[in-house]
Amino acid sequence: MGTIAGGIWAAALTPLNPDLSIDLGAYRDHVRWLLSHGCNGVAALGTTGEANSFSVAERQRVIRALGDANHTSERIIVGVGCCAAPDTIALCRAALDAGFTNVLMLPPFYYKGVSEDGLFRAYAHVIETLNEPSLRVIIYDIPQQTGLKMSLDFLAKLKAAFDGVVVGVKNSAGDWNAIDSACSRLPNFNVFAGTEQFLLPTLRAGGKGCISASANVTCAKLARLAKDWHTDRADMMQADVTDVRLRLQQFPMIPALKEIMARATGRDGWRRLRPPLENLSAEDAQNVSAQFFEDGALREAAG
Amino acid sequence: MGTIAGGIWAAALTPLNPDLSIDLGAYRDHVRWLLSHGCNGVAALGTTGEANSFSVAERQRVIRALGDANHTSERIIVGVGCCAAPDTIALCRAALDAGFTNVLMLPPFYYKGVSEDGLFRAYAHVIETLNEPSLRVIIYDIPQQTGLKMSLDFLAKLKAAFDGVVVGVKNSAGDWNAIDSACSRLPNFNVFAGTEQFLLPTLRAGGKGCISASANVTCAKLARLAKDWHTDRADMMQADVTDVRLRLQQFPMIPALKEIMARATGRDGWRRLRPPLENLSAEDAQNVSAQFFEDGALREAAG
Repeated sequence: MGTIAGGIWAAALTPLNPDLSIDLGAYRDHVRWLLSHGCNGVAALGTTGEANSFSVAERQRVIRALGDANHTSERIIVGVGCCAAPDTIALCRAALDAGFTNVLMLPPFYYKGVSEDGLFRAYAHVIETLNEPSLRVIIYDIPQQTGLKMSLDFLAKLKAAFDGVVVGVKNSAGDWNAIDSACSRLPNFNVFAGTEQFLLPTLRAGGKGCISASANVTCAKLARLAKDWHTDRADMMQADVTDVRLRLQQFPMIPALKEIMARATGRDGWRRLRPPLENLSAEDAQNVSAQFFEDGALREAAG
Repeated sequence: MGTIAGGIWAAALTPLNPDLSIDLGAYRDHVRWLLSHGCNGVAALGTTGEANSFSVAERQRVIRALGDANHTSERIIVGVGCCAAPDTIALCRAALDAGFTNVLMLPPFYYKGVSEDGLFRAYAHVIETLNEPSLRVIIYDIPQQTGLKMSLDFLAKLKAAFDGVVVGVKNSAGDWNAIDSACSRLPNFNVFAGTEQFLLPTLRAGGKGCISASANVTCAKLARLAKDWHTDRADMMQADVTDVRLRLQQFPMIPALKEIMARATGRDGWRRLRPPLENLSAEDAQNVSAQFFEDGALREAAG
């Protein structure tokens, strides 16, 4: 333990070139900016980062670029979960080769209705094939995208079978009870909420923090809560954080965040998305601007 | 038109080696067996074939093996749909390089709740990047796995935008009305039902036939219906075909079909599956044996 920073993690957005390839220079700049503006860590190549819209080779280039930037392993988690085990394995190897031990691993997500035994065997197959004791796997529970449910017993079984390798979970199911149970019943497990809406209760329950899409633009605000969470101002700060998050969630999240990045940085290219994701409508773009810039809520994101 | 065979298509199972790599020799034998035992065509690397559990490189080897076997392009459809456009593009190129023009293309299936405009742009991006007039795309509509819905208007829009390239749909949604509407409202579109339960009505509506998982083991029976569909015995034959299908569907389909293949061929290796798919329980395996061998329903599958 102790090899993964606690607190605020941004699920980094991925900036694109005009041909929709990854703009590695802008990516490096964005990760550096996040790590110097309140983020304790950056989760690269997750759902917010459009990871599954990129080939393994494209993702390997991102991982190498992060390695070249000499970030400490404690502050980076690399998304690696694919439908095909060989792809997940290749991305884990790329992360380790770049000096990063922490990986966020989706279950294979094409087939629905598979049992937890089947999912266990899928994780076991990847971990046993890799046979890398330095690997640190955080299970990525995001049923909205995968259509797959993961119980606490499932996490406990993985933790027991691969103790010291399966070290945590990111709960993006929006299920506070599941987060609370994991914190209380899985000792020394790194429990991350997938939304800052649960940041304060997660920290109070002994969880590690949150890995959040919106932290791409709200990290300064979130960092203040993570710093002051044990003070008597914490509940009020959480209410403010939750308000911004819920307002953001009214829009398609990834396009809204890229719209905000474009406005905050003045770089139109931030708006590019790989299909099937789409830009906000003109009306939504105006609403995002009105809600998150004109009232100053996210003005500090600029820079 | 006229470049895709009508009738019975098997969504080919993929046999595996002990290390869960693809047994290309057994695969070639199986495809040859299907094409000489009643299948008008074979759809390789679809859901039944566990395609998304294999890397792009593994799938390219399957495609080359099919090319080396000199099957005619009319009798092969290659599954190519991935989450990442570069992967889908690479598999289309592999199919064309191997001499196969017909591809079955899933939408990018990681993100849920995306609009049909977003899906349209995803298909357009792949087709325009390839810029291969010889390509023939069959849209793969399987919401059980993708979580994505496709309307008739969506299909019509793709067909209009890429006339002669987007040439058909495989409807695995189990939605007869959608199949019927596509047959009647999309002229010269190759409409395949994803189950033989709709074989006779699909042929009567002007559809092309069915692409079926169970055809791996029921192709002889299905071929007789496809041959005699215009006779007065057809409805009775369809009832028999439907009965077998519905009984098969009581079990997890892919494991059940691999169990049947193992029993029919005497090759235990047929039971191997990539996680997260799992073998049948001992009880289910016994039930499959009792229902599909002891009563002779599928005995003709052996060979």
